[in-house]
Amino acid sequence: MKTVILIGAQGKMGQAALTGLGNHKVITAGRSVEGYDYQVDITNEASVRNLFKTIGEFDAVVNTVGVCEYASFAEMTQEQWMTTVMSKMMGQINLVRIGQEYIADNGSFTLITGILNVKPIPFAIADATTSGAIDTFVKCVAYEMPRGIRINSINPTVLEEAWDVYGEMMPGFQPVPSVLVGKAFERSVDSFITGEVIFVDA
Amino acid sequence: MKTVILIGAQGKMGQAALTGLGNHKVITAGRSVEGYDYQVDITNEASVRNLFKTIGEFDAVVNTVGVCEYASFAEMTQEQWMTTVMSKMMGQINLVRIGQEYIADNGSFTLITGILNVKPIPFAIADATTSGAIDTFVKCVAYEMPRGIRINSINPTVLEEAWDVYGEMMPGFQPVPSVLVGKAFERSVDSFITGEVIFVDA
Repeated sequence: MKTVILIGAQGKMGQAALTGLGNHKVITAGRSVEGYDYQVDITNEASVRNLFKTIGEFDAVVNTVGVCEYASFAEMTQEQWMTTVMSKMMGQINLVRIGQEYIADNGSFTLITGILNVKPIPFAIADATTSGAIDTFVKCVAYEMPRGIRINSINPTVLEEAWDVYGEMMPGFQPVPSVLVGKAFERSVDSFITGEVIFVDA
Repeated sequence: MKTVILIGAQGKMGQAALTGLGNHKVITAGRSVEGYDYQVDITNEASVRNLFKTIGEFDAVVNTVGVCEYASFAEMTQEQWMTTVMSKMMGQINLVRIGQEYIADNGSFTLITGILNVKPIPFAIADATTSGAIDTFVKCVAYEMPRGIRINSINPTVLEEAWDVYGEMMPGFQPVPSVLVGKAFERSVDSFITGEVIFVDA
Protein backbone atom coordinates (compact mmCIF):
# COMPACT_ATOMS: atom_id res chain seq x y z
CA MET A 1 0.00 0.00 0.00
CA LYS A 2 1.32 3.39 -1.03
CA THR A 3 0.53 6.83 0.33
CA VAL A 4 -0.88 8.80 -2.60
CA ILE A 5 -1.60 12.54 -2.61
CA LEU A 6 -4.56 13.10 -4.94
CA ILE A 7 -5.05 16.74 -5.94
CA GLY A 8 -8.59 17.61 -7.01
CA ALA A 9 -10.41 14.52 -5.77
CA GLN A 10 -13.83 16.18 -5.88
CA GLY A 11 -13.75 16.93 -9.61
CA LYS A 12 -14.93 14.47 -12.24
CA MET A 13 -11.32 13.63 -13.19
CA GLY A 14 -10.40 13.27 -9.53
CA GLN A 15 -13.29 10.85 -9.05
CA ALA A 16 -12.06 8.92 -12.09
CA ALA A 17 -8.56 8.72 -10.61
CA LEU A 18 -9.96 7.54 -7.29
CA THR A 19 -11.52 4.48 -8.95
CA GLY A 20 -7.97 3.31 -9.74
CA LEU A 21 -6.41 4.05 -6.36
CA GLY A 22 -8.44 1.69 -4.18
CA ASN A 23 -5.42 -0.30 -3.01
CA HIS A 24 -3.72 2.72 -1.53
CA LYS A 25 -3.93 5.21 1.27
CA VAL A 26 -5.22 8.32 -0.53
CA ILE A 27 -4.70 11.77 0.96
CA THR A 28 -6.82 14.37 -0.83
CA ALA A 29 -5.94 17.99 -1.53
CA GLY A 30 -7.80 20.76 -3.33
CA ARG A 31 -8.41 24.45 -3.58
CA SER A 32 -11.34 24.65 -1.17
CA VAL A 33 -11.12 24.07 2.58
CA GLU A 34 -14.23 21.89 2.58
CA GLY A 35 -14.11 18.29 1.52
CA TYR A 36 -10.34 17.78 1.26
CA ASP A 37 -7.76 16.57 3.77
CA TYR A 38 -5.47 19.45 2.78
CA GLN A 39 -5.82 22.73 0.93
CA VAL A 40 -3.50 23.58 -1.98
CA ASP A 41 -3.33 26.08 -4.84
CA ILE A 42 -1.07 24.62 -7.53
CA THR A 43 -0.41 28.09 -8.97
CA ASN A 44 1.21 29.13 -5.70
CA GLU A 45 4.70 27.74 -5.03
CA ALA A 46 4.53 28.38 -1.29
CA SER A 47 1.19 26.55 -1.08
CA VAL A 48 2.61 23.57 -2.98
CA ARG A 49 5.71 23.42 -0.79
CA ASN A 50 3.59 23.70 2.34
CA LEU A 51 1.42 20.76 1.20
CA PHE A 52 4.36 18.41 0.70
CA LYS A 53 6.16 19.57 3.84
CA THR A 54 3.05 19.13 5.98
CA ILE A 55 2.23 15.66 4.70
CA GLY A 56 5.88 14.71 4.98
CA GLU A 57 5.93 11.12 3.72
CA PHE A 58 4.28 10.02 0.49
CA ASP A 59 4.94 7.72 -2.43
CA ALA A 60 2.91 9.26 -5.23
CA VAL A 61 1.43 12.55 -6.35
CA VAL A 62 -1.57 12.36 -8.67
CA ASN A 63 -2.77 15.67 -10.07
CA THR A 64 -6.17 16.00 -11.72
CA VAL A 65 -6.54 19.80 -11.77
CA GLY A 66 -5.48 22.70 -13.98
CA VAL A 67 -7.50 25.74 -14.95
CA CYS A 68 -7.97 26.36 -18.69
CA GLU A 69 -9.59 29.34 -20.35
CA TYR A 70 -11.63 28.73 -23.50
CA ALA A 71 -12.01 31.20 -26.39
CA SER A 72 -11.35 31.39 -30.10
CA PHE A 73 -7.68 32.11 -30.82
CA ALA A 74 -8.46 35.57 -32.20
CA GLU A 75 -10.35 36.53 -29.06
CA MET A 76 -8.28 34.86 -26.37
CA THR A 77 -6.51 37.54 -24.38
CA GLN A 78 -3.01 37.48 -22.94
CA GLU A 79 -4.63 37.25 -19.49
CA GLN A 80 -6.59 34.14 -20.52
CA TRP A 81 -3.44 32.57 -21.96
CA MET A 82 -1.50 33.28 -18.79
CA THR A 83 -4.21 31.89 -16.50
CA THR A 84 -3.96 28.63 -18.42
CA VAL A 85 -0.15 28.63 -18.61
CA MET A 86 0.31 29.36 -14.91
CA SER A 87 -2.15 26.65 -13.81
CA LYS A 88 -2.28 23.70 -16.19
CA MET A 89 1.33 24.07 -17.36
CA MET A 90 3.55 25.79 -14.78
CA GLY A 91 1.34 24.66 -11.89
CA GLN A 92 1.94 21.03 -12.80
CA ILE A 93 5.66 21.58 -13.53
CA ASN A 94 6.04 23.19 -10.11
CA LEU A 95 4.26 20.26 -8.45
CA VAL A 96 7.03 18.04 -9.81
CA ARG A 97 9.89 20.47 -9.23
CA ILE A 98 8.98 21.03 -5.59
CA GLY A 99 7.50 17.56 -4.99
CA GLN A 100 10.69 15.75 -6.03
CA GLU A 101 12.41 17.23 -2.97
CA TYR A 102 9.93 15.49 -0.66
CA ILE A 103 8.65 12.35 -2.40
CA ALA A 104 9.88 8.90 -1.29
CA ASP A 105 12.46 6.90 -3.24
CA ASN A 106 10.85 5.10 -6.18
CA GLY A 107 7.85 7.41 -5.95
CA SER A 108 5.82 8.65 -8.88
CA PHE A 109 4.17 11.73 -10.30
CA THR A 110 1.07 11.49 -12.49
CA LEU A 111 -0.01 14.65 -14.30
CA ILE A 112 -3.16 15.38 -16.28
CA THR A 113 -3.41 16.60 -19.89
CA GLY A 114 -6.24 16.01 -22.36
CA ILE A 115 -6.99 14.70 -25.82
CA LEU A 116 -7.57 18.12 -27.42
CA ASN A 117 -3.86 18.45 -28.25
CA VAL A 118 -4.24 15.59 -30.70
CA LYS A 119 -7.93 16.10 -31.54
CA PRO A 120 -8.33 19.88 -31.73
CA ILE A 121 -11.72 21.57 -31.35
CA PRO A 122 -12.76 25.24 -31.45
CA PHE A 123 -12.08 27.41 -28.38
CA ALA A 124 -9.54 24.99 -26.89
CA ILE A 125 -6.22 26.34 -28.20
CA ALA A 126 -4.82 27.21 -24.75
CA ASP A 127 -5.88 23.84 -23.34
CA ALA A 128 -4.32 22.03 -26.32
CA THR A 129 -1.08 24.04 -26.25
CA THR A 130 -0.50 23.50 -22.53
CA SER A 131 -1.40 19.81 -22.81
CA GLY A 132 1.23 19.56 -25.56
CA ALA A 133 3.70 21.26 -23.23
CA ILE A 134 3.02 18.87 -20.34
CA ASP A 135 3.04 15.73 -22.50
CA THR A 136 6.44 16.84 -23.84
CA PHE A 137 7.66 17.78 -20.36
CA VAL A 138 6.81 14.33 -19.00
CA LYS A 139 8.57 12.53 -21.84
CA CYS A 140 11.74 14.59 -21.45
CA VAL A 141 12.01 15.14 -17.68
CA ALA A 142 11.66 11.44 -16.87
CA TYR A 143 15.40 11.05 -17.59
CA GLU A 144 16.20 13.60 -14.90
CA MET A 145 14.18 12.13 -12.04
CA PRO A 146 16.46 11.04 -9.17
CA ARG A 147 16.11 8.08 -6.74
CA GLY A 148 14.00 5.91 -9.03
CA ILE A 149 11.22 8.46 -9.19
CA ARG A 150 8.85 8.06 -12.15
CA ILE A 151 6.61 10.50 -14.02
CA ASN A 152 3.75 10.02 -16.51
CA SER A 153 0.81 11.98 -17.82
CA ILE A 154 -2.74 10.79 -18.37
CA ASN A 155 -4.25 12.16 -21.58
CA PRO A 156 -7.93 11.17 -21.58
CA THR A 157 -10.77 11.98 -23.92
CA VAL A 158 -14.01 13.29 -22.42
CA LEU A 159 -15.55 11.23 -19.61
CA GLU A 160 -19.00 9.66 -19.98
CA GLU A 161 -19.81 11.38 -16.70
CA ALA A 162 -19.06 14.80 -18.27
CA TRP A 163 -20.64 14.19 -21.66
CA ASP A 164 -23.80 16.12 -20.78
CA VAL A 165 -21.67 19.25 -20.27
CA TYR A 166 -19.08 18.90 -23.06
CA GLY A 167 -20.70 16.61 -25.62
CA GLU A 168 -22.22 19.39 -27.67
CA MET A 169 -18.78 20.97 -28.19
CA MET A 170 -17.20 17.66 -29.20
CA PRO A 171 -18.98 16.21 -32.23
CA GLY A 172 -17.52 12.87 -33.26
CA PHE A 173 -15.89 12.17 -29.92
CA GLN A 174 -16.64 8.96 -28.05
CA PRO A 175 -16.69 9.45 -24.28
CA VAL A 176 -15.08 6.82 -22.06
CA PRO A 177 -16.17 5.63 -18.61
CA SER A 178 -14.37 7.01 -15.57
CA VAL A 179 -13.30 3.53 -14.51
CA LEU A 180 -11.27 3.19 -17.73
CA VAL A 181 -9.48 6.45 -16.97
CA GLY A 182 -8.99 5.18 -13.43
CA LYS A 183 -7.08 2.21 -14.89
CA ALA A 184 -4.64 4.64 -16.52
CA PHE A 185 -3.99 6.36 -13.19
CA GLU A 186 -3.57 2.94 -11.55
CA ARG A 187 -1.09 1.86 -14.22
CA SER A 188 0.93 5.05 -13.77
CA VAL A 189 1.07 4.66 -9.97
CA ASP A 190 1.49 0.87 -9.74
CA SER A 191 3.51 -0.11 -12.83
CA PHE A 192 7.17 0.63 -13.56
CA ILE A 193 6.57 2.84 -16.58
CA THR A 194 7.98 6.37 -16.77
CA GLY A 195 8.15 9.17 -19.35
CA GLU A 196 4.91 7.96 -20.89
CA VAL A 197 1.81 9.76 -22.06
CA ILE A 198 -1.02 7.34 -21.33
CA PHE A 199 -3.80 8.11 -23.78
CA VAL A 200 -7.30 6.98 -22.87
CA ASP A 201 -9.46 7.29 -25.96
CA ALA A 202 -12.03 5.25 -27.78
CA MET B 1 7.67 38.05 -54.77
CA LYS B 2 6.36 38.25 -51.22
CA THR B 3 7.16 40.72 -48.49
CA VAL B 4 8.59 38.67 -45.60
CA ILE B 5 9.30 39.97 -42.12
CA LEU B 6 12.26 37.97 -40.77
CA ILE B 7 12.75 38.30 -37.02
CA GLY B 8 16.29 37.58 -35.84
CA ALA B 9 18.11 37.66 -39.16
CA GLN B 10 21.53 38.14 -37.58
CA GLY B 11 21.43 34.93 -35.57
CA LYS B 12 22.61 31.59 -36.96
CA MET B 13 19.02 30.40 -37.39
CA GLY B 14 18.08 33.72 -39.02
CA GLN B 15 20.97 33.32 -41.46
CA ALA B 16 19.74 29.79 -42.20
CA ALA B 17 16.24 31.11 -42.90
CA LEU B 18 17.65 33.82 -45.18
CA THR B 19 19.19 31.20 -47.46
CA GLY B 20 15.64 30.05 -48.28
CA LEU B 21 14.08 33.47 -48.76
CA GLY B 22 16.12 34.68 -51.75
CA ASN B 23 13.09 35.09 -54.01
CA HIS B 24 11.38 37.55 -51.69
CA LYS B 25 11.62 41.05 -50.33
CA VAL B 26 12.92 40.45 -46.80
CA ILE B 27 12.41 43.04 -44.08
CA THR B 28 14.51 42.26 -41.01
CA ALA B 29 13.65 42.87 -37.38
CA GLY B 30 15.51 42.14 -34.16
CA ARG B 31 16.13 43.17 -30.61
CA SER B 32 19.06 45.51 -31.26
CA VAL B 33 18.85 48.82 -33.11
CA GLU B 34 21.97 48.04 -35.15
CA GLY B 35 21.82 45.81 -38.17
CA TYR B 36 18.06 45.39 -38.56
CA ASP B 37 15.48 47.34 -40.56
CA TYR B 38 13.19 47.42 -37.51
CA GLN B 39 13.54 46.83 -33.80
CA VAL B 40 11.22 44.41 -31.99
CA ASP B 41 11.06 42.58 -28.65
CA ILE B 42 8.79 39.55 -29.07
CA THR B 43 8.14 39.41 -25.32
CA ASN B 44 6.51 42.86 -25.46
CA GLU B 45 3.04 43.00 -27.00
CA ALA B 46 3.21 46.73 -27.70
CA SER B 47 6.54 46.30 -29.49
CA VAL B 48 5.11 43.48 -31.62
CA ARG B 49 2.02 45.48 -32.53
CA ASN B 50 4.15 48.51 -33.36
CA LEU B 51 6.30 46.43 -35.73
CA PHE B 52 3.35 45.13 -37.75
CA LYS B 53 1.56 48.48 -37.75
CA THR B 54 4.67 50.33 -38.91
CA ILE B 55 5.49 47.91 -41.73
CA GLY B 56 1.82 47.84 -42.71
CA GLU B 57 1.76 45.41 -45.63
CA PHE B 58 3.42 42.01 -45.55
CA ASP B 59 2.75 38.45 -46.68
CA ALA B 60 4.78 36.38 -44.26
CA VAL B 61 6.27 36.46 -40.79
CA VAL B 62 9.27 34.22 -40.16
CA ASN B 63 10.46 34.07 -36.58
CA THR B 64 13.87 32.63 -35.69
CA VAL B 65 14.24 33.91 -32.12
CA GLY B 66 13.19 32.86 -28.62
CA VAL B 67 15.21 33.00 -25.44
CA CYS B 68 15.68 29.71 -23.56
CA GLU B 69 17.31 29.20 -20.21
CA TYR B 70 19.33 26.02 -19.65
CA ALA B 71 19.72 24.17 -16.35
CA SER B 72 19.05 20.76 -14.86
CA PHE B 73 15.38 20.34 -13.94
CA ALA B 74 16.16 20.25 -10.22
CA GLU B 75 18.06 23.53 -10.42
CA MET B 76 15.98 25.47 -12.92
CA THR B 77 14.24 28.28 -11.08
CA GLN B 78 10.74 29.61 -11.64
CA GLU B 79 12.36 32.75 -13.08
CA GLN B 80 14.32 30.71 -15.64
CA TRP B 81 11.16 28.82 -16.59
CA MET B 82 9.22 32.04 -17.03
CA THR B 83 11.93 33.70 -19.14
CA THR B 84 11.68 30.75 -21.52
CA VAL B 85 7.87 30.59 -21.44
CA MET B 86 7.40 34.31 -22.05
CA SER B 87 9.86 34.40 -24.97
CA LYS B 88 9.99 31.14 -26.91
CA MET B 89 6.38 30.17 -26.16
CA MET B 90 4.16 33.19 -25.43
CA GLY B 91 6.37 35.51 -27.51
CA GLN B 92 5.75 33.37 -30.59
CA ILE B 93 2.06 32.90 -29.82
CA ASN B 94 1.68 36.67 -29.50
CA LEU B 95 3.45 37.19 -32.82
CA VAL B 96 0.67 35.16 -34.44
CA ARG B 97 -2.18 36.55 -32.34
CA ILE B 98 -1.26 40.15 -33.09
CA GLY B 99 0.20 39.54 -36.55
CA GLN B 100 -2.99 37.92 -37.88
CA GLU B 101 -4.71 41.28 -37.57
CA TYR B 102 -2.23 42.85 -40.01
CA ILE B 103 -0.95 40.11 -42.34
CA ALA B 104 -2.19 39.96 -45.96
CA ASP B 105 -4.78 37.44 -47.15
CA ASN B 106 -3.18 34.04 -47.80
CA GLY B 107 -0.18 35.07 -45.74
CA SER B 108 1.87 32.75 -43.55
CA PHE B 109 3.52 32.49 -40.18
CA THR B 110 6.61 30.35 -39.64
CA LEU B 111 7.70 29.75 -36.05
CA ILE B 112 10.85 28.13 -34.67
CA THR B 113 11.10 25.20 -32.28
CA GLY B 114 13.92 22.66 -31.97
CA ILE B 115 14.65 18.97 -31.99
CA LEU B 116 15.23 18.67 -28.23
CA ASN B 117 11.52 18.00 -27.62
CA VAL B 118 11.90 14.69 -29.46
CA LYS B 119 15.59 14.09 -28.69
CA PRO B 120 16.00 15.22 -25.07
CA ILE B 121 19.39 16.17 -23.63
CA PRO B 122 20.45 17.34 -20.16
CA PHE B 123 19.79 20.97 -19.19
CA ALA B 124 17.23 21.54 -21.98
CA ILE B 125 13.93 20.79 -20.25
CA ALA B 126 12.52 24.33 -20.64
CA ASP B 127 13.58 24.47 -24.29
CA ALA B 128 12.01 21.05 -24.95
CA THR B 129 8.77 21.83 -23.09
CA THR B 130 8.19 25.13 -24.89
CA SER B 131 9.09 23.57 -28.24
CA GLY B 132 6.46 20.93 -27.54
CA ALA B 133 3.99 23.69 -26.74
CA ILE B 134 4.66 25.57 -29.98
CA ASP B 135 4.64 22.45 -32.17
CA THR B 136 1.23 21.59 -30.66
CA PHE B 137 0.02 25.17 -30.99
CA VAL B 138 0.86 25.24 -34.70
CA LYS B 139 -0.90 21.95 -35.40
CA CYS B 140 -4.08 23.06 -33.59
CA VAL B 141 -4.32 26.77 -34.39
CA ALA B 142 -3.99 26.24 -38.15
CA TYR B 143 -7.71 25.44 -38.26
CA GLU B 144 -8.52 28.85 -36.80
CA MET B 145 -6.50 31.01 -39.18
CA PRO B 146 -8.76 33.35 -41.19
CA ARG B 147 -8.42 34.58 -44.81
CA GLY B 148 -6.32 31.66 -46.05
CA ILE B 149 -3.53 32.40 -43.61
CA ARG B 150 -1.16 29.48 -42.97
CA ILE B 151 1.08 28.57 -40.03
CA ASN B 152 3.92 26.07 -39.60
CA SER B 153 6.87 25.52 -37.32
CA ILE B 154 10.42 24.57 -38.25
CA ASN B 155 11.92 22.05 -35.85
CA PRO B 156 15.60 21.69 -36.77
CA THR B 157 18.45 19.76 -35.21
CA VAL B 158 21.68 21.63 -34.51
CA LEU B 159 23.23 23.54 -37.42
CA GLU B 160 26.66 22.64 -38.76
CA GLU B 161 27.49 26.31 -38.28
CA ALA B 162 26.72 26.04 -34.54
CA TRP B 163 28.31 22.65 -33.94
CA ASP B 164 31.49 24.13 -32.43
CA VAL B 165 29.35 25.71 -29.67
CA TYR B 166 26.77 22.98 -29.03
CA GLY B 167 28.38 19.79 -30.29
CA GLU B 168 29.90 18.83 -26.97
CA MET B 169 26.46 18.90 -25.30
CA MET B 170 24.87 16.81 -28.05
CA PRO B 171 26.64 13.45 -28.36
CA GLY B 172 25.18 11.32 -31.12
CA PHE B 173 23.55 14.22 -32.93
CA GLN B 174 24.29 14.84 -36.59
CA PRO B 175 24.35 18.55 -37.45
CA VAL B 176 22.74 19.71 -40.68
CA PRO B 177 23.84 22.51 -43.02
CA SER B 178 22.05 25.86 -42.79
CA VAL B 179 20.95 25.64 -46.41
CA LEU B 180 18.93 22.51 -45.62
CA VAL B 181 17.15 24.35 -42.81
CA GLY B 182 16.66 27.23 -45.25
CA LYS B 183 14.75 24.85 -47.50
CA ALA B 184 12.31 24.16 -44.66
CA PHE B 185 11.66 27.88 -44.21
CA GLU B 186 11.24 28.23 -47.98
CA ARG B 187 8.74 25.36 -48.05
CA SER B 188 6.74 26.90 -45.22
CA VAL B 189 6.59 30.31 -46.92
CA ASP B 190 6.17 29.20 -50.55
CA SER B 191 4.15 25.98 -50.38
CA PHE B 192 0.49 25.56 -49.44
CA ILE B 193 1.10 23.51 -46.30
CA THR B 194 -0.31 24.55 -42.94
CA GLY B 195 -0.47 23.14 -39.42
CA GLU B 196 2.77 21.25 -40.00
CA VAL B 197 5.86 20.77 -37.92
CA ILE B 198 8.68 20.61 -40.44
CA PHE B 199 11.46 18.57 -38.87
CA VAL B 200 14.96 19.01 -40.24
CA ASP B 201 17.10 16.24 -38.89
CA ALA B 202 19.67 13.81 -40.16
